[in-house]
Amino acid sequence: MTETPSSTMPPPSTAVVWRSVGLVLRVLTVISLVVSLIILTTNTTTVSSNFGQIKIRFQDIKAYRYVLATIVIGLVYGFLQTAFAIYHVTTGNRINGGDALYFFDFYGDKLISYLLATGTGAGFGVSVDLKDANSGTVSGLDKFFNKGNAASAILLFAFIFTAISSILSSLSLPKRA
Amino acid sequence: MTETPSSTMPPPSTAVVWRSVGLVLRVLTVISLVVSLIILTTNTTTVSSNFGQIKIRFQDIKAYRYVLATIVIGLVYGFLQTAFAIYHVTTGNRINGGDALYFFDFYGDKLISYLLATGTGAGFGVSVDLKDANSGTVSGLDKFFNKGNAASAILLFAFIFTAISSILSSLSLPKRA
Repeated sequence: MTETPSSTMPPPSTAVVWRSVGLVLRVLTVISLVVSLIILTTNTTTVSSNFGQIKIRFQDIKAYRYVLATIVIGLVYGFLQTAFAIYHVTTGNRINGGDALYFFDFYGDKLISYLLATGTGAGFGVSVDLKDANSGTVSGLDKFFNKGNAASAILLFAFIFTAISSILSSLSLPKRA
Repeated sequence: MTETPSSTMPPPSTAVVWRSVGLVLRVLTVISLVVSLIILTTNTTTVSSNFGQIKIRFQDIKAYRYVLATIVIGLVYGFLQTAFAIYHVTTGNRINGGDALYFFDFYGDKLISYLLATGTGAGFGVSVDLKDANSGTVSGLDKFFNKGNAASAILLFAFIFTAISSILSSLSLPKRA
């Protein structure tokens, strides 16, 4: 046991459980983000107009571009944190052993979870109402926005996993006052 | 001085400054939410159609109803926290003096800031793309969605103030491990 024991510290077995929970949350986040990314970026539809067939891709919806940006940033962060979590679980130590990484977790989780929250909101917001606005007009659009909703729903899970990571990293902060 | 001194504790004057910062953040949050609420709920427009004039209100956009819900919940929480913060600044103590209120702040700030983040995302997402979809067709709609963007922008500030409160309440948590 390399950590300093104190009266409030959980026994080592509990600490190991918490580290594993942390790793599972990181892995679930990355999986959700990858699935959401695939659903979002493969989403295209073709609608008929007086000027012929028009292909609609996810890039044509500005909010979906924002959603994509949040997913990509979330993924980069998620891979990094998964690597850190694997190191933490397998060795029982943090990479530099000091307090700096706790603050990186704390601010990183906060920032990324907020980013994913806004992405989720934007994805649902635009999908629900653009689907409504086009309901009954073009059948391909209905499916297009349903897929947008699906990508947002998976992103919602990624956001929730990151929010839980954020709660854990806040509770793990070294005492300030 | 009622608090136990320790080597890491800031001197009382710093603590007073932090309490005041906390109160200012709560007040700024409430003001932003009220302004956003007014812009959102007074937003109506009238568009001409083959069937006569059609009045469009914010309730017709589902995402705006969600934004309204996040603002109202944020306001209830904001008023409560402003009252607590006034008590804290004027008396120098928390209401029940124990740890419970720190955890209420911590989880409350986290939950409400995430809620406001999703509301901000939904508001911008739907406004930007529905404005795009209707650009050049009906002039009244352009102004309608501009107002939706304005309400979302003010809500973004409320979210940021709450996110800062959330950072402060996380850092104020009693030590766990």
